[in-house]
Amino acid sequence: MKKAAVIMGSDSDAPVVSAAVDRLKSFGIPVEVRIISAHRTPGVASEFASAAAESGFGVIIAAAGKAAHLAGFIAAHTTLPVIGLPMKSSFMDGLDSLLSVVQMPTGVPVATVGVGAAENAGILAAQILALSDDALAAKLAEFKADMTRKVMEKDEAFGGKLD
Amino acid sequence: MKKAAVIMGSDSDAPVVSAAVDRLKSFGIPVEVRIISAHRTPGVASEFASAAAESGFGVIIAAAGKAAHLAGFIAAHTTLPVIGLPMKSSFMDGLDSLLSVVQMPTGVPVATVGVGAAENAGILAAQILALSDDALAAKLAEFKADMTRKVMEKDEAFGGKLD
Amino acid sequence: MKKAAVIMGSDSDAPVVSAAVDRLKSFGIPVEVRIISAHRTPGVASEFASAAAESGFGVIIAAAGKAAHLAGFIAAHTTLPVIGLPMKSSFMDGLDSLLSVVQMPTGVPVATVGVGAAENAGILAAQILALSDDALAAKLAEFKADMTRKVMEKDEAFGGKLD
Amino acid sequence: MKKAAVIMGSDSDAPVVSAAVDRLKSFGIPVEVRIISAHRTPGVASEFASAAAESGFGVIIAAAGKAAHLAGFIAAHTTLPVIGLPMKSSFMDGLDSLLSVVQMPTGVPVATVGVGAAENAGILAAQILALSDDALAAKLAEFKADMTRKVMEKDEAFGGKLD
Amino acid sequence: MKKAAVIMGSDSDAPVVSAAVDRLKSFGIPVEVRIISAHRTPGVASEFASAAAESGFGVIIAAAGKAAHLAGFIAAHTTLPVIGLPMKSSFMDGLDSLLSVVQMPTGVPVATVGVGAAENAGILAAQILALSDDALAAKLAEFKADMTRKVMEKDEAFGGKLD
Amino acid sequence: MKKAAVIMGSDSDAPVVSAAVDRLKSFGIPVEVRIISAHRTPGVASEFASAAAESGFGVIIAAAGKAAHLAGFIAAHTTLPVIGLPMKSSFMDGLDSLLSVVQMPTGVPVATVGVGAAENAGILAAQILALSDDALAAKLAEFKADMTRKVMEKDEAFGGKLD
Amino acid sequence: MKKAAVIMGSDSDAPVVSAAVDRLKSFGIPVEVRIISAHRTPGVASEFASAAAESGFGVIIAAAGKAAHLAGFIAAHTTLPVIGLPMKSSFMDGLDSLLSVVQMPTGVPVATVGVGAAENAGILAAQILALSDDALAAKLAEFKADMTRKVMEKDEAFGGKLD
Amino acid sequence: MKKAAVIMGSDSDAPVVSAAVDRLKSFGIPVEVRIISAHRTPGVASEFASAAAESGFGVIIAAAGKAAHLAGFIAAHTTLPVIGLPMKSSFMDGLDSLLSVVQMPTGVPVATVGVGAAENAGILAAQILALSDDALAAKLAEFKADMTRKVMEKDEAFGGKLD
Repeated sequence: MKKAAVIMGSDSDAPVVSAAVDRLKSFGIPVEVRIISAHRTPGVASEFASAAAESGFGVIIAAAGKAAHLAGFIAAHTTLPVIGLPMKSSFMDGLDSLLSVVQMPTGVPVATVGVGAAENAGILAAQILALSDDALAAKLAEFKADMTRKVMEKDEAFGGKLD
Repeated sequence: MKKAAVIMGSDSDAPVVSAAVDRLKSFGIPVEVRIISAHRTPGVASEFASAAAESGFGVIIAAAGKAAHLAGFIAAHTTLPVIGLPMKSSFMDGLDSLLSVVQMPTGVPVATVGVGAAENAGILAAQILALSDDALAAKLAEFKADMTRKVMEKDEAFGGKLD
Repeated sequence: MKKAAVIMGSDSDAPVVSAAVDRLKSFGIPVEVRIISAHRTPGVASEFASAAAESGFGVIIAAAGKAAHLAGFIAAHTTLPVIGLPMKSSFMDGLDSLLSVVQMPTGVPVATVGVGAAENAGILAAQILALSDDALAAKLAEFKADMTRKVMEKDEAFGGKLD
Repeated sequence: MKKAAVIMGSDSDAPVVSAAVDRLKSFGIPVEVRIISAHRTPGVASEFASAAAESGFGVIIAAAGKAAHLAGFIAAHTTLPVIGLPMKSSFMDGLDSLLSVVQMPTGVPVATVGVGAAENAGILAAQILALSDDALAAKLAEFKADMTRKVMEKDEAFGGKLD
Repeated sequence: MKKAAVIMGSDSDAPVVSAAVDRLKSFGIPVEVRIISAHRTPGVASEFASAAAESGFGVIIAAAGKAAHLAGFIAAHTTLPVIGLPMKSSFMDGLDSLLSVVQMPTGVPVATVGVGAAENAGILAAQILALSDDALAAKLAEFKADMTRKVMEKDEAFGGKLD
Repeated sequence: MKKAAVIMGSDSDAPVVSAAVDRLKSFGIPVEVRIISAHRTPGVASEFASAAAESGFGVIIAAAGKAAHLAGFIAAHTTLPVIGLPMKSSFMDGLDSLLSVVQMPTGVPVATVGVGAAENAGILAAQILALSDDALAAKLAEFKADMTRKVMEKDEAFGGKLD
Repeated sequence: MKKAAVIMGSDSDAPVVSAAVDRLKSFGIPVEVRIISAHRTPGVASEFASAAAESGFGVIIAAAGKAAHLAGFIAAHTTLPVIGLPMKSSFMDGLDSLLSVVQMPTGVPVATVGVGAAENAGILAAQILALSDDALAAKLAEFKADMTRKVMEKDEAFGGKLD
Repeated sequence: MKKAAVIMGSDSDAPVVSAAVDRLKSFGIPVEVRIISAHRTPGVASEFASAAAESGFGVIIAAAGKAAHLAGFIAAHTTLPVIGLPMKSSFMDGLDSLLSVVQMPTGVPVATVGVGAAENAGILAAQILALSDDALAAKLAEFKADMTRKVMEKDEAFGGKLD
């Protein structure tokens, strides 16, 4: 089974990013977590990305904030799908992060999820890996059904009223 | 080989969206194009999305503008990866489209590309399908190398000068 | 008398949305509250909306945040007036919610109120129902006069000064 | 049958606003069009709004741009539902208009449609009036079905391809 | 001497607006404070504004937030200079207030100060009244010189260093 | 009678700014027009502003775009009321200009009008000068009445219809 | 004398960027122009930047648009001052470019100029090189004086009037 | 060795700006700190800036918020490189500051760093001074290497996992 990489620009992102890691693990997907910075360890970043496919990774989640170049940097060095996770920053709740991640030039896409949406990054990675893994696809279907069930239960609990 | 679906909310989006279709075809990926609206043909949309995996699709590109719900609507009905293509609208160049596509709630991610970035949507779809298709992965690597070569040639043509 | 429905995407919205419910009740309007998600329980959402007119509803308030598709989703399945209540999100105070609710495509309007303006959603619903209910119209007139009176009393209390 | 009023702050808005008028007429709803400015003819505006219910109006569409106070001004003088139509301005595509219309204080809601969405304003007005008019409700249902049919025909015409 | 009016849409604005009142009083300018709402007491607002010049006012400061129509409403009913004070709101720090106040249509200007800049509203009012009051002009010059002196003293206190 | 100064950062602003000059002249107010740049001729700017009151000016309109410091620069050197006219720029329709003009620090207000609202700058200047000039006040009242009359005539011309 | 490098992500940027090159040449500064893309030729980019100081460059201007990573990428590989020139994009006039360039993480600054401000990038580069080059400093002083003179001449040509 | 100036518009900025001062000192660069306001002490500002080069300064960091004119004001009076540090304000996290600093007119550039990025302002100043100071250049290289080392150590400490 192919692995997922979860990399982040700074260890201060870990408390948010952990939701992506936890979700991936919950589906039984092997995960490798790395602290790699596009601006502080660019050499590590290019080596990692260039070798990612051969190293057994199938998808890479890259989380960064502000002028968030990490996902784009990784995408420049691999043809694996790269999921960009824009982190909430101290400037306009991460509008800078979002635009820096999603507005990639033609030829080098980044699959961007919502600002700070770490769990969604994990689910998207699982959806991508599930294309060639029927057991994983089944787990995703179950996860979805479970989510539906929970909302329906809450709806029922309210009983049509707010007191 | 799994197919890619390219759906759009309105046929007026076709001139932009065609870049996604063309790029997919250039990689030899079978594509199906649909006009489906989350708001005008929601029944078609939910049927299509619910059956997409069984119908042989591996990835779905959904293009829409303004309060662009199409990609999220599709994602609500399938566990296939859904690529959201926010179209440039007449309001703030598509800020409405971008936020409507990317800011999905937990549990239902959409892999968002840049505003109007149709070709990137096609490339991302190919990257996802290439995970289980080595021939396609090779084509993507070639495409990337070609892109690099072209920039290097232009750089050389300039010869370090601007006249 | 026709009923008002108040639906929300998540029970975490209840503390804000309750102001809409309370205002409706204060006018003696029968209200039904539901937890329905466009993305997690789309089947419930389409069933509810399709049957809403027959079920005796005259107006539907739909509250959601971020890529807030709930109001538009409901509007796609009914010709009843749908009031969209964009919830304050963690991104730019709900700009994402506002644009996702208000920027609907031609043919499927949503009557949007301000971000987090739950009480106003309730009042607007009452104004709509009052068109065919003179007693309700009288209550609204009284509510308005009361509001005017309160501001005038405060103005008088200040006595032209700030100490 | 109750009438709809369509008022606009300036006759330069007429080319856009006419789509609201046309849509209302297409449903057989009697319409009265007025040029009334919150800032240039405030006396006319308050008289009109205060008398609107007695004059046989059931709903009022108010279109204005920039610091677009017209809809709110009208809503301050009546308990009829007021539909705010923010016009595209020369500043950020009408962000000023949108916020001036939608962000109303508690107690005085305005039912806001998208920027420049004149036809949707007309449809929403019809939906409101249809609550007590079954024939109109039937026309709206037909309109919706027709819209669905047209998208399905276009979808079929494409035949799954983009050439 | 002409009076200054300071009006606000809600008494909840008083803690911020008081800085305008205090500054006016510090210059010996007679001030009248009113709670008047463009949307809840429009009748009071138009009466007040229409009579303001005759009542001895020379300038009016109007403070409001969100869809902040108060200053424009007042300006519609008088030719006195109206100073608009956009209050910080819960949406994008008052971007809604700012645009609703400043983007007035041709013919009806509002002299807008910064978001929440109550003291500046008071100073601007004083500058306007000082045009025909040399003693007031002298007080403003002294105020300005004092402000300069304070910054220079702080600069000196730092002594070129930060420890 | 006190003069009005109209200064602009660049002669390329003249076609827009001329509306302010024309409006001032229409009221019979003596106007002096200057090309002064806060960044290119700061010495001229500080000299002009420091001497403005003594030179017989009663109000200064300052027009500039982008990082529009001109109005603030002038206001730093005088206690005359300074009207800031933010010019439409090539960036977000002049959001940069607007914020650079209106968001002044405490102590140094600028009376800001809408983006590109040159005529309103002229009217506001007239309103300020009219405080001590009854003849000018009468002209302003006439101007306002005329404006009202024109809108009412247009309203009548429409005759309640849009054809 | 140290050289200036002017690099751009795409040759389509050349018409704008040429203003930087021309300005540098006007000061007699040796310039080298390169087409280098952070995403398409990242290997070239890192080689160029790593060797830039040794190659005799004293300052690097990097122009790019959208998710504009070029300047930050270069800055990650050198301690030379890097001037970021955010290009106007098709999204919100280059807000994406501006934020992607300026909001760099701690440790890796980019000296950002205005959106599309190519000539300013050239002037800033000259100012930096002039610190150790008195002849260049004299040219800059002359350039500044010339700029001042031109504005003063225009001011004089207007003669205080706008006709 | 040339000195660096760090000036700020208000002493309330000192806690943030101190990071710039500390970083400059860490490189052994002589620093002078000043409280100078473009709007409150414009005379001091123009004198300081005009004499800065002769006074032995090589680079000036200017920090200000809101309508942040300080950096541009300084740049108008000198040909030294001026680094603009936009401070986080209470309006949209300093969008006003950022645009007021970076969007300078042609001819007068400001080298802008991120909102509140005081340390980066210090590093950029050091990079500029290092062009003619090999010892400083060596310190910067060491600083960069150190930064890389720290990220690598953290990466290693994680050991590929998040627990």
